[in-house]
Amino acid sequence: MSEIKYPNRIIKTPSTNLIKTTNSKKARLGADFEEMINESNKFYLNKGLAAIYKKPTPIQVVSTTFPKRSMARITEAYYKTPSTTDYNGVYEGYYIDFEAKSCHSNSFPFSKIFKHQVEHLKTVHNLGGIAFLLIEFPNKEEIFLLPATMLFNLYDSMNEGGRKSIPYAYFKENAYLIKRGYTPQVDYLKAVDLLIKENKAKRI
Amino acid sequence: MSEIKYPNRIIKTPSTNLIKTTNSKKARLGADFEEMINESNKFYLNKGLAAIYKKPTPIQVVSTTFPKRSMARITEAYYKTPSTTDYNGVYEGYYIDFEAKSCHSNSFPFSKIFKHQVEHLKTVHNLGGIAFLLIEFPNKEEIFLLPATMLFNLYDSMNEGGRKSIPYAYFKENAYLIKRGYTPQVDYLKAVDLLIKENKAKRI
Repeated sequence: MSEIKYPNRIIKTPSTNLIKTTNSKKARLGADFEEMINESNKFYLNKGLAAIYKKPTPIQVVSTTFPKRSMARITEAYYKTPSTTDYNGVYEGYYIDFEAKSCHSNSFPFSKIFKHQVEHLKTVHNLGGIAFLLIEFPNKEEIFLLPATMLFNLYDSMNEGGRKSIPYAYFKENAYLIKRGYTPQVDYLKAVDLLIKENKAKRI
Repeated sequence: MSEIKYPNRIIKTPSTNLIKTTNSKKARLGADFEEMINESNKFYLNKGLAAIYKKPTPIQVVSTTFPKRSMARITEAYYKTPSTTDYNGVYEGYYIDFEAKSCHSNSFPFSKIFKHQVEHLKTVHNLGGIAFLLIEFPNKEEIFLLPATMLFNLYDSMNEGGRKSIPYAYFKENAYLIKRGYTPQVDYLKAVDLLIKENKAKRI
């Protein structure tokens, strides 16, 4: 398992607690992928190419205090399950909607995505939006765009007793490989262009 | 002077304090409008017409505890300024993006909307999305859809010394009046249809 060193990543490794180190390392790897996407979205926005944002994490606020008249301090709150996906926005008039996940094994387990998120992607697709997953395999230094239609087929076959995950080989053969770079770090709109072309071709 | 900052804010109203009561009444009216829109969006979603959601309020989490291993309790957090608008989604392949505000006076003051939100609506419009404001005048029991292009003209003229608000009469003459009903309570997609038609007519 080779470790990929992203430019700005800082890993603090307390030598006393191995389990915690592993967990926090995984969490941070996920965050890195998120940061790469956010940076790419900023690049697209500044270039006037697209306006795609990560939605804020939904939080249920239970109680607040007002230390100053104008400022609310939240003193008790809990993370909620997101109703939709992480990212959405507009690109060349198209509605774009996707979920991004880092995958540290050799397959992407469906347990990483909620059933209602798959349903949401189906709705988006049916309404003419561009829906997909961005899957990072950090160990292989590869990122794929998986069109939602491919996800639906595999997900539905799981419900009929099929595989509970999508193997790396499937991505390699069927999904769009995304070029890694400096600015943007994850140039996924190039894959979206191909996806749009393919969809148009199918409609003709 | 923006009255309603945080839709989900719970305001405890001691009956001894009239000012606070007024605030909470205003906050509740704002929340009602939000609830009406959310209910309408649910209706559209169930009918398979559109997938439009309110984005979660962005919150900066400062500290958390773990009363149970699997559950994080947020113990200190603050509301952040939203980077974009409240609502976005997809309708008939179009990217939809809007901000909703309740307006308790006879004009809509520009102070109710952040400059970067107007910029965001401009970007959306330039990228081919459908951008607008939904403005409720609860005292008149009327709701208007104001196309973003009208907002841009008035907003830019304010920066050149023009009015700092949009009078109710302007909405009455130029914006789309939205029919109030039972299900959906705010049938704004009908106005969006007209807006799309108008945009298409302009492009021809």
